[in-house]
This record gives sequence, structure tokens and C-alpha cells, in this order.
Amino acid sequence: MPNPTAAMLVIGDEILSGRTRDSNMHHLAKRLTDHGIRLMEARVVADDHAAIVDAVNTLRARHDHLFTSGGIGPTHDDITADAIAAAFGVAITHRADAMALLQAHYDRAGQPFNDARQRMARIPDGAVLIDNPISTAPGFSLGNVHVMAGVPSIFEAMLAGLIPTLTGGAPLLSQSLRVNRGEGEIAADFGALAADFPDLSMGSYPFNVNGAHGTNLVIRGTDPARIDAAMTRLAALFG
Amino acid sequence: MPNPTAAMLVIGDEILSGRTRDSNMHHLAKRLTDHGIRLMEARVVADDHAAIVDAVNTLRARHDHLFTSGGIGPTHDDITADAIAAAFGVAITHRADAMALLQAHYDRAGQPFNDARQRMARIPDGAVLIDNPISTAPGFSLGNVHVMAGVPSIFEAMLAGLIPTLTGGAPLLSQSLRVNRGEGEIAADFGALAADFPDLSMGSYPFNVNGAHGTNLVIRGTDPARIDAAMTRLAALFG
Repeated sequence: MPNPTAAMLVIGDEILSGRTRDSNMHHLAKRLTDHGIRLMEARVVADDHAAIVDAVNTLRARHDHLFTSGGIGPTHDDITADAIAAAFGVAITHRADAMALLQAHYDRAGQPFNDARQRMARIPDGAVLIDNPISTAPGFSLGNVHVMAGVPSIFEAMLAGLIPTLTGGAPLLSQSLRVNRGEGEIAADFGALAADFPDLSMGSYPFNVNGAHGTNLVIRGTDPARIDAAMTRLAALFG
Repeated sequence: MPNPTAAMLVIGDEILSGRTRDSNMHHLAKRLTDHGIRLMEARVVADDHAAIVDAVNTLRARHDHLFTSGGIGPTHDDITADAIAAAFGVAITHRADAMALLQAHYDRAGQPFNDARQRMARIPDGAVLIDNPISTAPGFSLGNVHVMAGVPSIFEAMLAGLIPTLTGGAPLLSQSLRVNRGEGEIAADFGALAADFPDLSMGSYPFNVNGAHGTNLVIRGTDPARIDAAMTRLAALFG
């Protein structure tokens, strides 16, 4: 059976103006290659509705997967979710589960969950959310199109959760624990725990929101009982 | 008069496999912005004849200029020159002036000017050579398509010679303000400001560097007075 094929679409004026150097394409290329998926082509387009719709529809028809980065934040130039909905001809609404995730996130941070932040819960109908262990606002997969953030640390964390779901094997589950300590502080114990559960994948994602900094610890695997066992140990260490 | 537009085509399996991280797109983006040419889109394709021909013909029709990097070396996978010739429907031959340049170069180096090296003198009919001050093997311009090497130092040297020969537009200017607030906090006011200045492009870019968290707000345009006016409003809002 031939390897699945993929394309990437990088979305953002800041890449084309030279303000920002994209790193997500290179990261994706390495991860896909490791995973046996062939990245066949990549494109960069501006924050332009018609350009995004056109590229999405061309690339999703040509390949098994299309990965996008950029344009899913809270500001006026974040138009990716609407363009994806338009490309598929589906509606887009503030989705309840995404709203709940974000409401809880901003409640914890003691910040208002205002209209701009609520924009990040707008998800095209039929999509599956992609976990964002760093800043909560989710990505999503709609059909074979995987929509992720442009900020490299968030893109990489989203992709780390997404990639194992693309094998076609047993579904990969995850649970996470938010810890108010830096990565350097928890690394030894977390590493030892990971060594005790070689069948699970454990990742740590530092965050820093308005001065509150810490680490989200994520455990991924296919056996819910094993994940529960590891989470019990994790909570005893850092809970 | 509107600014000229451009596209870039990066050619090479090594970019798509993740072995090499492209830097030419970012370099070109900065140089074009300085020169008043708008980079509207970019693509990366594999060392695949049909993929190159297809991308070249799409992009050269859409924009004032198309810049390519990669695939003009001496090995069997360097197929760019042939693909450009095919895209334009012209012949490609070992051209006398390019042969002479390379013959002299290898004579000076005391190295044989063998068949593989002679491949680098194969230039589509009607092209103008682009000087290569580093390793002699020339690039070329055919119509509005500018074909350059993939090695960054050579790409950059070729571009440095080429850019002054291209008609630019008004310089694309930008100013930015660094704000110690999250995007979600400034989105509403920033979006309203952007709506008041439809002739300018405004983008927001969150950062999180060594515990410092905030947003860079960037205003781009060609009229310095309009950018100043918008920056004054921006400073009043968030300064």
C-alpha cells in the first residue's frame, strides 16, 4: 500500500512580508516523514479569504491530508476558520465544547471571556477539535483538513497530539494535568514516570499567561486503563 | 500605481522531506518588501517535472514576477531548467556564453569541465543569464520568471544582482508597537482601528519569550503619513 500523501498551507501576511520566518513547514515535514506520510507540496498565502479557499479546495482534493497553520486567533486578521467553512460549504458557529474549554481557561486566568476571545470557539460544522495544551484555543480537523495555530510552540503541540491519530491504528487517547511549575522543575520526575510507562507517550508544554507560568503535562496512549494508572501517579507527584 | 506583485517557487525534495529548512523564501520576502514588490504567494514542490511545469505556468500568469530557487545544479535531480523550457514551450541547449563562463571557471580551478558540469550551461532559448559571483554557474530570467540556485549564499548573491534590474513600486513600509497584553484583550479596539484604515494592513502577532508575554502590533502600507496617523491612534489606545 502506498504511503498517504499530504500538503501544507501556511496562512499569513507576516510570512510573505518577511516580518516572520515560517518554521512550521519544516517541523511538519520532519514529523510527517517520521510517520510515513509523504509531504508532496506546500503553499504560503496571505490573510485573504479567496486565496485560502482556493488553496484549501485544490490541496484537499489532491492529497490524503492537508495541514494548515495560522489565522485562528482572536483578531480581525484571523480568518482561517471562516475560509475553511466556506471551502467545505458548511456553517460555522460558536461551538459549545470549545466555548466551555475557553470559558474555563479565562475563568482560571481571571480574565474576561470577551467577544474577541469567543471568536476562537467558532468551529465549522462537522469538525473534530484539536487539543491545544498551551493556550487552550483549539484547532480542528474537518474531513482531511487539519487546521492549527501559527505560533510555532502551539502548532507543534497541536501536531504532536494530531499525528498519532493519523496512523489508521487504534485511536490515541490523552489526558493532561496543568502544573504551576516550570518544565525544568518537573522534568526528572516526569521523565522517570514516562520510563515506567513505555507504552504511553508523555509530553510537557510550558505556558505563560499574564505572568502565570507553568507546564501542561499530557499523557497519550491507546489503553484508557494505562492512562488512568499513569494519571494517578502524575497527580500524586504534582497534583 | 499599485505595487508589482510576485510569487516564489521553491523546488526540492529535501525541503519537503524535512532534511533541509528553506531560508530563501524569507530572504526573498524581505528583499522584495524593501524594493516595493509585493510577494503574494509561495509554493514548494518536489523535484518533479510535471509539478514544476504546472506551478510555473500558474504563477507566472498570475503575477508580475516569479522567482524560483533550486534544481539548477549538475546532478540528475536538477531538472528545473528543462521544466522551465517545457513550461514556456521553448528549446533548451548548451549555450555558448554559459559554456565559456564555466569552462574558464573550471580551467582556473584545474578541474575537468565534464558532462555533468556542462549541464549547468543548458539554458532555455530566449533567456537572459543571471550572474553567479560565487560559483559561476548562472541562473537565468525567461520572460517574468527568474531562476536561481537553491544554496542560500548563491541564491542571495544572484538576487542581489537581479533586484536592481526590476522595476519596484513605492516602498512597503511598516511600523510596530509592542504591547504587554494578550491578543484577546486588544482585538476589539485593534480591529476597529483597522476598519478605519482600509488602505493599511494591520496584523497582531503574539509572543512569549523568556516569560515575557504580549503582542506585537504591525501596521503596513505605502503612505508614511497614513501609517503615522494610525500609529498615533494605536499609541493612544495601547501605549
